[in-house]
Amino acid sequence: MNIGIVGASGYSGEVLLSLLLEHPNISLTTVTSRSLAGEAVASVFPSLRNRDKGLKFSPSDPSELAASPDLDLVFLALPNGVASEYAIPLCKAGKKVIDLSADFRLTSPEIYEEYYGHPHPEPEWLSKSAYVIPEITPGGWQSQQLIAAPGCYPTSILVPLLPLVKSKTIDTSTIIINSISGVSGAGRKVAEDFLYCERNESAKAYGLVKHRHLSEIEEQLSLSAGTKIIVQFTPHLAPMSRGIATTIVVSKTGNCLDEVYEVWRKSYADSPFVSVMDPGQTPDTKWVCQTNRIDFSAIFDPRTENLIITSAEDNLMKGAAGQAIQIMNIWSGFEETAGLV
Amino acid sequence: MNIGIVGASGYSGEVLLSLLLEHPNISLTTVTSRSLAGEAVASVFPSLRNRDKGLKFSPSDPSELAASPDLDLVFLALPNGVASEYAIPLCKAGKKVIDLSADFRLTSPEIYEEYYGHPHPEPEWLSKSAYVIPEITPGGWQSQQLIAAPGCYPTSILVPLLPLVKSKTIDTSTIIINSISGVSGAGRKVAEDFLYCERNESAKAYGLVKHRHLSEIEEQLSLSAGTKIIVQFTPHLAPMSRGIATTIVVSKTGNCLDEVYEVWRKSYADSPFVSVMDPGQTPDTKWVCQTNRIDFSAIFDPRTENLIITSAEDNLMKGAAGQAIQIMNIWSGFEETAGLV
Amino acid sequence: MNIGIVGASGYSGEVLLSLLLEHPNISLTTVTSRSLAGEAVASVFPSLRNRDKGLKFSPSDPSELAASPDLDLVFLALPNGVASEYAIPLCKAGKKVIDLSADFRLTSPEIYEEYYGHPHPEPEWLSKSAYVIPEITPGGWQSQQLIAAPGCYPTSILVPLLPLVKSKTIDTSTIIINSISGVSGAGRKVAEDFLYCERNESAKAYGLVKHRHLSEIEEQLSLSAGTKIIVQFTPHLAPMSRGIATTIVVSKTGNCLDEVYEVWRKSYADSPFVSVMDPGQTPDTKWVCQTNRIDFSAIFDPRTENLIITSAEDNLMKGAAGQAIQIMNIWSGFEETAGLV
Amino acid sequence: MNIGIVGASGYSGEVLLSLLLEHPNISLTTVTSRSLAGEAVASVFPSLRNRDKGLKFSPSDPSELAASPDLDLVFLALPNGVASEYAIPLCKAGKKVIDLSADFRLTSPEIYEEYYGHPHPEPEWLSKSAYVIPEITPGGWQSQQLIAAPGCYPTSILVPLLPLVKSKTIDTSTIIINSISGVSGAGRKVAEDFLYCERNESAKAYGLVKHRHLSEIEEQLSLSAGTKIIVQFTPHLAPMSRGIATTIVVSKTGNCLDEVYEVWRKSYADSPFVSVMDPGQTPDTKWVCQTNRIDFSAIFDPRTENLIITSAEDNLMKGAAGQAIQIMNIWSGFEETAGLV
Repeated sequence: MNIGIVGASGYSGEVLLSLLLEHPNISLTTVTSRSLAGEAVASVFPSLRNRDKGLKFSPSDPSELAASPDLDLVFLALPNGVASEYAIPLCKAGKKVIDLSADFRLTSPEIYEEYYGHPHPEPEWLSKSAYVIPEITPGGWQSQQLIAAPGCYPTSILVPLLPLVKSKTIDTSTIIINSISGVSGAGRKVAEDFLYCERNESAKAYGLVKHRHLSEIEEQLSLSAGTKIIVQFTPHLAPMSRGIATTIVVSKTGNCLDEVYEVWRKSYADSPFVSVMDPGQTPDTKWVCQTNRIDFSAIFDPRTENLIITSAEDNLMKGAAGQAIQIMNIWSGFEETAGLV
Repeated sequence: MNIGIVGASGYSGEVLLSLLLEHPNISLTTVTSRSLAGEAVASVFPSLRNRDKGLKFSPSDPSELAASPDLDLVFLALPNGVASEYAIPLCKAGKKVIDLSADFRLTSPEIYEEYYGHPHPEPEWLSKSAYVIPEITPGGWQSQQLIAAPGCYPTSILVPLLPLVKSKTIDTSTIIINSISGVSGAGRKVAEDFLYCERNESAKAYGLVKHRHLSEIEEQLSLSAGTKIIVQFTPHLAPMSRGIATTIVVSKTGNCLDEVYEVWRKSYADSPFVSVMDPGQTPDTKWVCQTNRIDFSAIFDPRTENLIITSAEDNLMKGAAGQAIQIMNIWSGFEETAGLV
Repeated sequence: MNIGIVGASGYSGEVLLSLLLEHPNISLTTVTSRSLAGEAVASVFPSLRNRDKGLKFSPSDPSELAASPDLDLVFLALPNGVASEYAIPLCKAGKKVIDLSADFRLTSPEIYEEYYGHPHPEPEWLSKSAYVIPEITPGGWQSQQLIAAPGCYPTSILVPLLPLVKSKTIDTSTIIINSISGVSGAGRKVAEDFLYCERNESAKAYGLVKHRHLSEIEEQLSLSAGTKIIVQFTPHLAPMSRGIATTIVVSKTGNCLDEVYEVWRKSYADSPFVSVMDPGQTPDTKWVCQTNRIDFSAIFDPRTENLIITSAEDNLMKGAAGQAIQIMNIWSGFEETAGLV
Repeated sequence: MNIGIVGASGYSGEVLLSLLLEHPNISLTTVTSRSLAGEAVASVFPSLRNRDKGLKFSPSDPSELAASPDLDLVFLALPNGVASEYAIPLCKAGKKVIDLSADFRLTSPEIYEEYYGHPHPEPEWLSKSAYVIPEITPGGWQSQQLIAAPGCYPTSILVPLLPLVKSKTIDTSTIIINSISGVSGAGRKVAEDFLYCERNESAKAYGLVKHRHLSEIEEQLSLSAGTKIIVQFTPHLAPMSRGIATTIVVSKTGNCLDEVYEVWRKSYADSPFVSVMDPGQTPDTKWVCQTNRIDFSAIFDPRTENLIITSAEDNLMKGAAGQAIQIMNIWSGFEETAGLV
């Protein structure tokens, strides 16, 4: 199976590259970047020296890529809004596409425009694509050609929450979510705010009160619940490269802890990348970094009658490149864990 | 005025020392530590080389300290439970005492025992001491002899919240607080969990669901409100030395943003160490580190009807040593900002 | 092939575990630790959740391990001086042993005692063991039963330097070596000096002028040169978890740059984990972290007539666990890169 | 005394501002920046909220500044090459100028051009300015109008080395210098290489073999020695915001340790910001950060006959803004330590 990565110049792209170069079941044939065309992969990403198999960045031309006979599946690691320009021609040419951008994560073009500031470029394709969290998205998505890989914050929130919402285990009227992210979540964006000396020794909330990922979080929760769910989501930055730690307070839900764990254990019994921790244990981003795993646990506070869920993932792995490969593995009939730990 | 520090071997002690050595109105005569007695201050804290004025650690004996004619005011930077052993004899001998431990922060010995795991050693002194946040504690505390300096998390929470609770500006039925702290919050505790490689590149929640500081937060809020207030408080660790970033969600309180700012502006008009930021701005721990300032702002989310307050402080300054010196300044009739920025 | 790890409680042990659990050619059957016996590997190292294959720590008894029929090769990740207690009985029982401690790195028991402060526990075994840098140690070591894996600093120094010394390409009279290490180099040692707040935002030289690894560096250089070589070695700590950056100044050696590169290219033509960079490029620890690779380059300064060599490696990978597995791969006839990147 | 800062938008500018706002003897009247003109100082540097005395950035026009009656002394925190455009008109108008750029650090315009890549803009002023390390520059500089504050690396190297060279205590034929700097040394430069994720968890050498500061280091050493001195200087970056740790190997100099300490003790007996540590002690950047102090020590290695000197300073304090204020203090007859710790 021949694989391509389009737009592999950022941090997610680098991790995708690193993982696909070692993947036992595929052949990475094409790596594109407008700005890096002609350069050797190993000179752009010295972390890949000696194992880049001589790959060079090729130019990013949608129609050329669509016409290439050597591409069966393509990962898009492009900015929001740009991914569509590639996804549609590639799909039309019969390629499978896994898109790491936000372009096909929402079903509603209105909400896309509200959160992303421009009209959706290909609204008719929203219904022809699938948003896939491999562990919980119901079967059937495999027949689509275009898969949207979830965002980093949403993954850390939805994996623990979706099964509880679907099973109506928790009250959903007041859900307060706080996340702490490493700086790579912003991508390789050259801006003063992401300079070492600005982010080092600094913790802060940002993106109040309508971070873009909120659209995706609420849509997925609402689809599962069969009713509109609104949540409070406040992301924070901390001085680390990778990792997201999320704390979810489900307010005044009563002591449903046993049911919560029962739902989780049923939902994730066969999920190699989901690790449910006992109540009282709390996850740590350090334990999941460089892995595709998400760890989480819940505890009930009898004083407040709130349920508190804490989760941790690597934003570039389970929150981006790792999950995209997990999707490819399942889609292609490979072992779910192939090329991943 | 002659000043002593008892138990100055930890991070708060080091900051206290550093600030008091430069303070324009006092003379630092005594620095004690059981384990460091006899050692030069500058050899224990090389950060103070060339400006330690030749001070040496003396032994920590309560009765000797109480008998010393050269001590007018003493800072206690001791573990919880130990501070009392010094505070009472010193007070009885007529010294003023500012205690940085939790021993005199609560008015209820039952709650102290519930949260600190042992009976309060001197319950009758709970009513003879005052818990002082200099900006908002009502006058009168100056006549006490024993002042409890607030905890680090509580300061970051109470400074923005207390005036709103007192003025009944916000609904207090569902308050969700998340804080992110630098590692110095744990003190200079030699334990595996605080090794560099354990905390670096790691974010995690901890202390669920009943961190010790919760007792102090709820007691102060309840005293201000005139009714029992219960909150959800989840602290987190992030890989930085200093700083606390706190995010408070006041649930379903309706759009009281104008009133919130009016109350804050009135309450803190003359407070040099309180900086109220405009809605939409969010504080950053980097901006307050090495200062005694606390920055905060609020924003209203019309979708959720929640009010979100974010604050930032340096846990060792406004959250500990800086605030203790601010208390001393006011107590002693010095300028409030003397020796502080 | 059945593999055991003895003393897997430290950082090198954790990396060894992580790599061996995924290794395609072996079966990890035994993991021992005196202090952790009975505990699940995944509860001690939560980073290994979901992929620890149910392993538990077993007690560390040398004779029991020696008698075990299920062990073909054993990695020792034990303190210096303790490793010998296991190595000898295991060898006598016919097991292969790869020792990550310093116990068998030197050929001279006198130098061992000088640097490690106690007589060598098994001096007669010094000649029955081999010190192996897989890329350059001449063949023949495979017939030994006991292999000493090199130290972290020495690897970063010897890989670039040994072939140049052996081929007499450089003048060896004045070699000045400075290294910067991440904090994991100290192991999981619970000491104040390794607390997060002590090492964060701190750079410093340490171990002057006779760091233990100097013995190993000089012995290897001298063996290659056929004459006694003395160097100046100054290690430094920087605030990062992993990585060693080494800068070697070969003083007044004249412009031998072409010869240097020729020797390197010949020596390392078939070495998948050695990456020689062009003059003018300088390696970065970030590029090699989480890999078994070592990057290095040289430049000649015509003003000083000095040659400057800079190298970078991951101290826990090429500097410890990764290199140990590379040794196992070659020793066992596996592909050299099996289980490694 | 009325003070101005020209070009205060970088990290050195921020520290200058912070120090001058609290300085007891001066009045900070003017802060300029081309790009920030009109903005409030506290909105550009939120770290200065509540204590910025209402200052706004004014435009940076050399002739207007020269004509201003409210400026007695001006600090220039401008890029190399730009500083001259301000320094000369200001001097001609009778202002005192302390320049933090490299424009007036060298006496030779040829060497300036060799290292800075453009002809010196005002070569005739090189002889009318003075390069001042307050502790060791011989008296007389006070009569100049234009003072060049030393570079960060040079300060960490020259303070320990200059008196030894001047007194001919050490052999100067082979001096090897390695420095490790925090990232703020690069200024607030918005470039990919200084993004958080690029510098975090990374150590590397850079600037081989002719870093710009080498010109300043060698010129000062040569002037002191009365003969041309050539050194090897290799700077490194480590993941921290501030601090420089320098290790100097003076090769084959013989055991001159007693003389070294005698020279140092004589030279720095009255220097409040120089702290000579005992042999065997090594300085740590953490101990000097946020101070204007430089710590250093030496040790003799009998095996190599080399002398090893290690120093530590805060690159933004003793290496930039702090030292500039120290110069102002002495120049203006204030206490040397005024406004500094």
